[in-house]
Amino acid sequence: MRVHELTVVECRNVLYRARHGRLACARDEQPYIVPFFFYLDPAEDFLYSFSIMGQKVEWMRLNPKVCVEVDEVLDRDNWTAVVAFGRYQELDDSPAHADARLRANELLQFHAAWWLPGGLKPESAQEHRTPLLYRIEIVQLTGRRATPGD
Amino acid sequence: MRVHELTVVECRNVLYRARHGRLACARDEQPYIVPFFFYLDPAEDFLYSFSIMGQKVEWMRLNPKVCVEVDEVLDRDNWTAVVAFGRYQELDDSPAHADARLRANELLQFHAAWWLPGGLKPESAQEHRTPLLYRIEIVQLTGRRATPGD
Repeated sequence: MRVHELTVVECRNVLYRARHGRLACARDEQPYIVPFFFYLDPAEDFLYSFSIMGQKVEWMRLNPKVCVEVDEVLDRDNWTAVVAFGRYQELDDSPAHADARLRANELLQFHAAWWLPGGLKPESAQEHRTPLLYRIEIVQLTGRRATPGD
Repeated sequence: MRVHELTVVECRNVLYRARHGRLACARDEQPYIVPFFFYLDPAEDFLYSFSIMGQKVEWMRLNPKVCVEVDEVLDRDNWTAVVAFGRYQELDDSPAHADARLRANELLQFHAAWWLPGGLKPESAQEHRTPLLYRIEIVQLTGRRATPGD
């Protein structure tokens, strides 16, 4: 097996295809990971997503530093992992976010992916189900790929 | 689709079966996720794993608060996600860790899983390849499962 670093373009391709990964936020140095759906804007350094209110959003409002991870593991000799450090930006109804909200709605509705674990809560906590839109600005992107061979 | 909370026993079963998930650590409120292999000790609240030196280990030495996530996504109506908050414990050669190192070696060698992304670096950085053993003490465990239906 050989392991090599991916270029930024290769990392972006992995994120673009994946659409499903994990998002980590942190509070008081305690990290917290959730699975989430996203869509990479192919023209910019933003991942768009949505969520209903909950611990993840509360933490990201207090500390916008996040991490996104996507992996594709076929077997022990064939895997890819991409990690992005990013910043959370909530796309509220303010005029300042009008363009970004429009872009988020275009991307997410077009790809019809309103089914994600990150957007769902157990039945006992469904009182706040209006999703909020957000995006992650990518500030650092790295990846590795393993392929068979010496 | 229905979403319900998993019991602690159900969460442990998911971790026990999975053996592959994601580990997040944090430094200066910046979370960092990596894919990793682990083995849950069925008798205790510890996940055992190994790694070579790198950013993940450096960060966990400075801040032992970590998060482990495992998800099983079959399709939009069939998925499970388990999240554990935990504490990093490095199992060095000191007498205090002798029993834990023995247990780690038993579990990890028995399951022959020395192939993990978390234990590998690109070829350009293979100078420190002796793996170190560590375990994550589980301090909080939650999970959700979605199943088809109203």
